[in-house]
Amino acid sequence: MAFFRKHYHPPGTAPGSLQAHPERSEKPCRFRAIRFHKEHFEVAEDSEFVPDARATVPEGQVTWLHAQGQASGKQLAAIGDFFQLHALALEDVHNTGQRPKVEEYDDQLFLILALPHFADGEVSLHQVSLFLTTDTVLSFCDGPSDPFEPVLKRIQQNASKLRSRGSDYLLYALLDAVIDQGFPVLEAFGLELENIEEKIVDGGGRETLLRLHAMKRELILLRRMLWPQREVLNKLMGQENKLIKDETLVYLRDCYDHTIQIMDLLETYRDMSVSLVDIHLSSVSNRMNEIMRVLTVIATIFIPLTFVVGLYGMNFSNSASPWAMPELRWYYGYPLVWLVLIVITIGMLWFFRRRHWL
Amino acid sequence: MAFFRKHYHPPGTAPGSLQAHPERSEKPCRFRAIRFHKEHFEVAEDSEFVPDARATVPEGQVTWLHAQGQASGKQLAAIGDFFQLHALALEDVHNTGQRPKVEEYDDQLFLILALPHFADGEVSLHQVSLFLTTDTVLSFCDGPSDPFEPVLKRIQQNASKLRSRGSDYLLYALLDAVIDQGFPVLEAFGLELENIEEKIVDGGGRETLLRLHAMKRELILLRRMLWPQREVLNKLMGQENKLIKDETLVYLRDCYDHTIQIMDLLETYRDMSVSLVDIHLSSVSNRMNEIMRVLTVIATIFIPLTFVVGLYGMNFSNSASPWAMPELRWYYGYPLVWLVLIVITIGMLWFFRRRHWL
Amino acid sequence: MAFFRKHYHPPGTAPGSLQAHPERSEKPCRFRAIRFHKEHFEVAEDSEFVPDARATVPEGQVTWLHAQGQASGKQLAAIGDFFQLHALALEDVHNTGQRPKVEEYDDQLFLILALPHFADGEVSLHQVSLFLTTDTVLSFCDGPSDPFEPVLKRIQQNASKLRSRGSDYLLYALLDAVIDQGFPVLEAFGLELENIEEKIVDGGGRETLLRLHAMKRELILLRRMLWPQREVLNKLMGQENKLIKDETLVYLRDCYDHTIQIMDLLETYRDMSVSLVDIHLSSVSNRMNEIMRVLTVIATIFIPLTFVVGLYGMNFSNSASPWAMPELRWYYGYPLVWLVLIVITIGMLWFFRRRHWL
Amino acid sequence: MAFFRKHYHPPGTAPGSLQAHPERSEKPCRFRAIRFHKEHFEVAEDSEFVPDARATVPEGQVTWLHAQGQASGKQLAAIGDFFQLHALALEDVHNTGQRPKVEEYDDQLFLILALPHFADGEVSLHQVSLFLTTDTVLSFCDGPSDPFEPVLKRIQQNASKLRSRGSDYLLYALLDAVIDQGFPVLEAFGLELENIEEKIVDGGGRETLLRLHAMKRELILLRRMLWPQREVLNKLMGQENKLIKDETLVYLRDCYDHTIQIMDLLETYRDMSVSLVDIHLSSVSNRMNEIMRVLTVIATIFIPLTFVVGLYGMNFSNSASPWAMPELRWYYGYPLVWLVLIVITIGMLWFFRRRHWL
Amino acid sequence: MAFFRKHYHPPGTAPGSLQAHPERSEKPCRFRAIRFHKEHFEVAEDSEFVPDARATVPEGQVTWLHAQGQASGKQLAAIGDFFQLHALALEDVHNTGQRPKVEEYDDQLFLILALPHFADGEVSLHQVSLFLTTDTVLSFCDGPSDPFEPVLKRIQQNASKLRSRGSDYLLYALLDAVIDQGFPVLEAFGLELENIEEKIVDGGGRETLLRLHAMKRELILLRRMLWPQREVLNKLMGQENKLIKDETLVYLRDCYDHTIQIMDLLETYRDMSVSLVDIHLSSVSNRMNEIMRVLTVIATIFIPLTFVVGLYGMNFSNSASPWAMPELRWYYGYPLVWLVLIVITIGMLWFFRRRHWL
Repeated sequence: MAFFRKHYHPPGTAPGSLQAHPERSEKPCRFRAIRFHKEHFEVAEDSEFVPDARATVPEGQVTWLHAQGQASGKQLAAIGDFFQLHALALEDVHNTGQRPKVEEYDDQLFLILALPHFADGEVSLHQVSLFLTTDTVLSFCDGPSDPFEPVLKRIQQNASKLRSRGSDYLLYALLDAVIDQGFPVLEAFGLELENIEEKIVDGGGRETLLRLHAMKRELILLRRMLWPQREVLNKLMGQENKLIKDETLVYLRDCYDHTIQIMDLLETYRDMSVSLVDIHLSSVSNRMNEIMRVLTVIATIFIPLTFVVGLYGMNFSNSASPWAMPELRWYYGYPLVWLVLIVITIGMLWFFRRRHWL
Repeated sequence: MAFFRKHYHPPGTAPGSLQAHPERSEKPCRFRAIRFHKEHFEVAEDSEFVPDARATVPEGQVTWLHAQGQASGKQLAAIGDFFQLHALALEDVHNTGQRPKVEEYDDQLFLILALPHFADGEVSLHQVSLFLTTDTVLSFCDGPSDPFEPVLKRIQQNASKLRSRGSDYLLYALLDAVIDQGFPVLEAFGLELENIEEKIVDGGGRETLLRLHAMKRELILLRRMLWPQREVLNKLMGQENKLIKDETLVYLRDCYDHTIQIMDLLETYRDMSVSLVDIHLSSVSNRMNEIMRVLTVIATIFIPLTFVVGLYGMNFSNSASPWAMPELRWYYGYPLVWLVLIVITIGMLWFFRRRHWL
Repeated sequence: MAFFRKHYHPPGTAPGSLQAHPERSEKPCRFRAIRFHKEHFEVAEDSEFVPDARATVPEGQVTWLHAQGQASGKQLAAIGDFFQLHALALEDVHNTGQRPKVEEYDDQLFLILALPHFADGEVSLHQVSLFLTTDTVLSFCDGPSDPFEPVLKRIQQNASKLRSRGSDYLLYALLDAVIDQGFPVLEAFGLELENIEEKIVDGGGRETLLRLHAMKRELILLRRMLWPQREVLNKLMGQENKLIKDETLVYLRDCYDHTIQIMDLLETYRDMSVSLVDIHLSSVSNRMNEIMRVLTVIATIFIPLTFVVGLYGMNFSNSASPWAMPELRWYYGYPLVWLVLIVITIGMLWFFRRRHWL
Repeated sequence: MAFFRKHYHPPGTAPGSLQAHPERSEKPCRFRAIRFHKEHFEVAEDSEFVPDARATVPEGQVTWLHAQGQASGKQLAAIGDFFQLHALALEDVHNTGQRPKVEEYDDQLFLILALPHFADGEVSLHQVSLFLTTDTVLSFCDGPSDPFEPVLKRIQQNASKLRSRGSDYLLYALLDAVIDQGFPVLEAFGLELENIEEKIVDGGGRETLLRLHAMKRELILLRRMLWPQREVLNKLMGQENKLIKDETLVYLRDCYDHTIQIMDLLETYRDMSVSLVDIHLSSVSNRMNEIMRVLTVIATIFIPLTFVVGLYGMNFSNSASPWAMPELRWYYGYPLVWLVLIVITIGMLWFFRRRHWL
Repeated sequence: MAFFRKHYHPPGTAPGSLQAHPERSEKPCRFRAIRFHKEHFEVAEDSEFVPDARATVPEGQVTWLHAQGQASGKQLAAIGDFFQLHALALEDVHNTGQRPKVEEYDDQLFLILALPHFADGEVSLHQVSLFLTTDTVLSFCDGPSDPFEPVLKRIQQNASKLRSRGSDYLLYALLDAVIDQGFPVLEAFGLELENIEEKIVDGGGRETLLRLHAMKRELILLRRMLWPQREVLNKLMGQENKLIKDETLVYLRDCYDHTIQIMDLLETYRDMSVSLVDIHLSSVSNRMNEIMRVLTVIATIFIPLTFVVGLYGMNFSNSASPWAMPELRWYYGYPLVWLVLIVITIGMLWFFRRRHWL
């Protein structure tokens, strides 16, 4: 994940512009239109846009239009025209990488959410945009896979609550699917973190540290994008718009609890990763100290020994003076030197042990 | 304790599902039904569920159903049906590892609490779920031992206040028993921490550090789960539901004070553990420095000595030149060398002492 | 000071219990009853409890009962009965180590405060509990010395404001005496900290660090107990109970300022102690670096010298070959070697100086 | 960027003074006056001041006076007189380096904003001051380049929304242009940071650290100046002045979102840079440890070898005693010594490998 | 600056006492009385107190009494009597080292401010106390120099706004003079900090670190005393007392902005100083590492060389065995040894270079 993820127009551009971003390859976008009421249900799955989705909506039916992938500026403009969406909201759908938020326009609600995704040991975030009007829900998901498959399946079951309730309950179901996606991602993340903890306690090396750093980085970015979702739900619950019925509020509260749990987990993971860095540093320095200590002790023992043997390598002429190293001519001179060497060695070992340096 | 402790259903699952969690072995769950009023008292202890607990409740009696262990989805569904509990609340009882919270439904209150437990030097947390209606209290505890034994004993005493007050006072008694469980756990934790402090001041090694790390980890998780309990009590005291009578409020305030004291302790422990890590690091590095200093001083003293004796080990031919190491042929050459060696040693020791390096 | 200081009853005990704490030796408790109005004043000092203190209180008189030491459960129960104190409040008086707080019951106020005490270079905290009713003040102090002596002396003076005002002004005077006790304690603490700062700047050793750690620990505990006093005074000033008259409020505001000043000082001390740890670490490592540098330089200079002299200690047979170390037979061979040694030494010293390593 | 950037008058100077700052070279200031309504549009570009800009403003026209560069005190006084601007506001325009803020006077709004600028790898900040009255917008920009060029171009287009709306919408357009300038600056900053991250992971040296420090410094200063802009927009949206019409509020909300996104990015960058310092430190110490370890191992292997060869350099006289180093006269003495040397070497290598020191 | 700066009376002293502080030498205090209205102006400068300052104040005149230095308890009591000041306020004037605050009594306002002062590279803080009544301002400044000289000069000018406005505008002018004193102090502080930054980047030593520590200490104390000034101005602007007229509020708002700018600067300086400590630590350790690396490399190169020359210093008897160091008798033995030595040296240098250790 890059640090800077937002798409934006050049400063000074008129608000509501939908210019193409040259650096982004416009992937094809798949649209799906669903219309249902209590007894009825129909899906129009197409790779093309379905503009007449709302053409003849009978009373009491809910229409759900889902766009998977990155819609082009033209497609967005067409949808915006048809459903009369606010230009600033469309701009936010277009410029992905937005911060989650809820925006209330006269007769419609606009939400941006972040959908976490975990693959190949790496976390990524995708933008999900939702529009709610009295009988329509529009959803745009800028990710590789559709997070709303289970919701679709639930709609297809006849006895489903989703069928008998209005568009606001459908919005809740979509919200819930996006937010709950955080749990498996964070569970995988937590397992990875415990994994790294084990390696670090066992004295992991440089790669472990870099992996930990990468995870801290992902945590920072996750926090930045998931933190505002809490506020989104808070605002959603507190607003007095008639678009969300009172009986749906208790479900949104449940959703809100989930966002808090996710933030709690992120906080915990952050604390853990900080703590792991400490452990790593101290275990690296511990290990290093141990090595240096043993090696230095070895060197220190041999240095006096080398001095002693050097001493008797001196070439003082024993013919010139009886004071010139008479030890060299003693009968037990050489064994005595060995005795001295052994005594020094044992003495130093004893000294080091007593001081707990070995 | 694992970082990620929550059980959850796959994203997109319909709210209120009670599917079994494959990875969790469903332990048998013991139920106990108590019914009492001022003069009367009866207990039905059974390993089977007691569905007719409330069948014929006379006016003024309080029914308390306690489930110790992990109830199966089927059992929960049956209880939920019987007592008309909210589906989302039941899901939270089922998916243990929830964050403590209080939820207010039309004519019932739902609370989740975290019960700390200390055994074998390790802290664990279990979920306690409580339901309150006008004449009934339901409690679910997902732990190895029943925290409500003392409350049961108090009910069995005839003069007990518990008998003469309503279900809300019973709820308070259960709440109080769960929250006060924090004190012995934190006392044991504090003793352990003081223990570690002593070891660290005495220069503890790697295991002490890992133990301290484990305790910091436990503190982080304790904090995460106990912090929201404060909010739970705050909400409970502030709500305008008629389920909790005014005369019980002063007791809840006492309970609230206890949660604050527990949070205070956790904060203090956290500050202490951070401080202990610092002490540990500095005492490890102090120890290391001391070792290195002494060893390096030893080496440094011997290095010039070794140079001197090496000097006189050179084989300059004294036959070729009078300049070739005449010292070797001096009468007092060898004693002079010893003098030089001793002077160097004493000089360096004096130098190191003066600089406080020894 | 231990980390965990609170006395508590086993979880599940009925609220308001006054059981003895087996681990605490019940010290004898001295009671003192004072009754005064504008013109009149009488003291009954006794080591026994004075139950009839309020027996015949004429209109306009204020009764102050002070208990110095740890009252037994029985004594507390008797006092509670006599003055009709709330059972939960009495329990808090009994279980010392409570967090400062203010509790408002129907016609009485209950306050818990923490009294700091500095002796032998160590800070300790004692619990002061105060009850206020319209004409009575009860005070319990669980410490070695009576903090209210100066207040008693002021009452004994005829012209004193204390005599002419009601029980709420007496409460203020007691509060003020407890809170202002913080200033001499923090002044002594600050002097100690400046003392340590000086030692550290001069390069203090391990004991200085442990002393600093102990002070940080005391700061953490002081903060934990003194922080809530601010809130206590805030609540006291904000409450609408008629027990505290409007003309006393300005004095409480003064008291509140003092608690803020104390918290400010604690914050400052905390910042200072953090900063001192940094200084200590960096000065220890500076010192160590200096030692290692000098020693390593010495070793590094001698190592090439030792190589050179070792070179001419080789036993190449000059009889076998004219190539075998002809230097040994040169006329000025030995002086030349000395020249080489001196040149190497000076060269390295020059090199190290130029690089500012010496 | 310097730490202290604010221009100020000497303490005690009368408020509203416009004295010249001696240390600042007064650069020439270019003025531009634009007057437009729905169908009409005219520009007066001049290096001289245009005092009669508002002389004959017909109803429904908007006048925009822009000053690029640092206006002199005299010029400001003239403009202030003409448009009846508040003296304190003019002083703030004059003393650049102000904190962003919004100030509401009777019939005019005064805003200060900070315009970030990125050139040659360095971020700088310039002050933009804006005045809004019912039909006039004044803008002062103290930077090298004009940030309002795109807005001018949009005005020049006939179909532009800017032309058909009032002065408040123009103010929004200017605000938006200033705030959105943050995105390219932060994008460049983020790329630079990722760049540095790569270098650090590869083990960057001292310059990388100094560059990182410089970026942290820039971040601190950016944060200090951009943080209050959020508050500025918040106040602007919340105020009840009639100067900003309701239909412009939704655009200001969009602007507010952008300031939050910018703060989010700054937070993320800060967390990242802290994390990068950690990585750098640990990778430097890792590298150092590795070097020291290998070198110490080499030294440690040779030290016993040197001892052995020193041993047989001793001059014990084999004529004086058969105990005097008989090894020297053994037939296979020398090969044996080599064997010993090789065994020691291999043994130590095996020992070091087994302990993972190599 | 000492950590603990507050003067206080012994705990339990009656409120409003003005006892002398034995440890403080009572410096003489200079008083100055000014009386002015629009057309008129008179000053009575005297080292003695001027009690009849307000004796015959005609309507519409403002009296300003300024006391420079530390007034004695007796003088304060006399002033307090004369102007009917509150006893608690007088105590705060007497016990200098108070936290800035604003206190509102019935018909007077009492303010305490902190006046920063920079001299000889050190920051000090002095207490300024201000009283405001409808037609009088009293100011007490406990510092070496009078901060209100410029205000006096402005009053002496006939056209001055100060002359035509009331006592509240005079209070603002004094406030402004005290608060703006922060700018030159902080500018000097910032320059000093940039100075230190330069030294540290160049690798400054121990004194630089101690200087930085001293500045951090000063920052902590400045923050502690200047932070509450923001709150003081906030309260002043929010209060409903009639003492401050509405037209003065806009000037107070300007003052408030200045306190925020000062806090912002202090925050920035704090962040910078933290960052500088990091830089210092890492540059010290970098330097150390570099030294150790080079020295260790030198030692490591010579150690094998010394081994080789030691090898040929062994005294194996070539008469006893043809295996005994035949190299010594080879014709090119000695040059070969030199070849070996050179090869080892070059090999190691190449190895170290390749690994970037040199």
